[in-house]
Amino acid sequence: MHVLQIRIAYADTDQMGMVYYGNYLTFFERGRTEFLRDSGIEYREIEERGFYFPVIHAECDYYYPAKYDDLITIETSLTGLTAASITCSYKVKLGDKLLAAGKTKHPFVNKTMKPVRFPQDIKEMFEKYLEKDN
Amino acid sequence: MHVLQIRIAYADTDQMGMVYYGNYLTFFERGRTEFLRDSGIEYREIEERGFYFPVIHAECDYYYPAKYDDLITIETSLTGLTAASITCSYKVKLGDKLLAAGKTKHPFVNKTMKPVRFPQDIKEMFEKYLEKDN
Amino acid sequence: MHVLQIRIAYADTDQMGMVYYGNYLTFFERGRTEFLRDSGIEYREIEERGFYFPVIHAECDYYYPAKYDDLITIETSLTGLTAASITCSYKVKLGDKLLAAGKTKHPFVNKTMKPVRFPQDIKEMFEKYLEKDN
Amino acid sequence: MHVLQIRIAYADTDQMGMVYYGNYLTFFERGRTEFLRDSGIEYREIEERGFYFPVIHAECDYYYPAKYDDLITIETSLTGLTAASITCSYKVKLGDKLLAAGKTKHPFVNKTMKPVRFPQDIKEMFEKYLEKDN
Repeated sequence: MHVLQIRIAYADTDQMGMVYYGNYLTFFERGRTEFLRDSGIEYREIEERGFYFPVIHAECDYYYPAKYDDLITIETSLTGLTAASITCSYKVKLGDKLLAAGKTKHPFVNKTMKPVRFPQDIKEMFEKYLEKDN
Repeated sequence: MHVLQIRIAYADTDQMGMVYYGNYLTFFERGRTEFLRDSGIEYREIEERGFYFPVIHAECDYYYPAKYDDLITIETSLTGLTAASITCSYKVKLGDKLLAAGKTKHPFVNKTMKPVRFPQDIKEMFEKYLEKDN
Repeated sequence: MHVLQIRIAYADTDQMGMVYYGNYLTFFERGRTEFLRDSGIEYREIEERGFYFPVIHAECDYYYPAKYDDLITIETSLTGLTAASITCSYKVKLGDKLLAAGKTKHPFVNKTMKPVRFPQDIKEMFEKYLEKDN
Repeated sequence: MHVLQIRIAYADTDQMGMVYYGNYLTFFERGRTEFLRDSGIEYREIEERGFYFPVIHAECDYYYPAKYDDLITIETSLTGLTAASITCSYKVKLGDKLLAAGKTKHPFVNKTMKPVRFPQDIKEMFEKYLEKDN
């Protein structure tokens, strides 16, 4: 599990005085990128090798709103792995309080957006970081 | 069902050359607002009466990417209704091609974010527009 | 001058209950794209021919806030033209009321981001639409 | 001068493969908030006391693009001060390279958006942090 801190900006809020619901998907992306970096592979590097991780599914449950200036944490973990896709899970917290939780699923594709199997090094890395019981 | 057209701007895209995944939730919001307006009640008016429709769940499946300058359509329909919440469903299309589909669920709350039952006029409006088989 | 209408979404607002200041630059982009389309050349087509219009300067003066659900208009005009750059000017209005006004400057570059002279057809189009006294 | 680091996310980029021009105004906001916090007054607290700092002018010059995964720095300084407004200046850098520079001007207003003079403590704080020669 990787933990990232994010400070909520005015730009993130809407007139209900809380973070706009679509912005949590940006928080998930930031968490996912830092999870990959911590796992030993930068997403930037994956693209340089000619691969992409587009999104085919995203979902989020919202429990309590994040508000302006809150210093929230994004907990990202790898909770699903097939030969050519990953599923990441996210918890957005303020201190111990769970604000939101979600998932995203990503096929592994080449430059023509065709699904491809993971290269061995990437596969091994994911196997190492996969959380079995989440 | 309400149909809204949206032109994809540069601002909506990311460096993969397609619309950023979080922005579909903004498209959903735009579709939802126009669906409400067409149904005879403006969301702005709901807030003026002291009520809100925050989001407690959102999900999206991505089939084909929307790209810069595409003139996409958002089809919004009301597919769930309880005494104090609604579920909206969305289809994002380019011509006949389904690009993405999703759902959002919204409790009806007052200014203190407490769930409340719908006023009679709003309830009747939703009953009229509810799509039974979606 | 080209006039585009935009409906303000929740996504555009911030907790001050008005449109976030950075979002006006997105409105400018939308106005610019439609101005080009109306002038007979789509920005999408310019990129397909291997050229780009990046931004080297942007500015905005804010007079009155645009608010949720407002149906604003963006007036875009071409107010500057050199051998290899354009300047666009924008007025954001709600009815007759001027909410904001701004400018953006764009060099014309090739795929390696080197400034290049306009092709003849594009140059002639801009000369035709240039507003002399703005 | 306050220095803030920001990691560029996919959400920040557009299909030109660089940060969308409007997003620099969000970086400025993040820099401004942290500058205020470092100076001893949180913007959140200013709002709690019934005051706001809306924006009446923003501008940005773009020299080199920030790209995905770049760890950029935002240098924020207070470069203008009147009885009821401030001007902030920003430099966006990647290492020593200046990517963009800009300014924003903010009147000090009360809840009815009327300009008001600074309270003594805020005025003294700004006088202390004002950079005379910028």
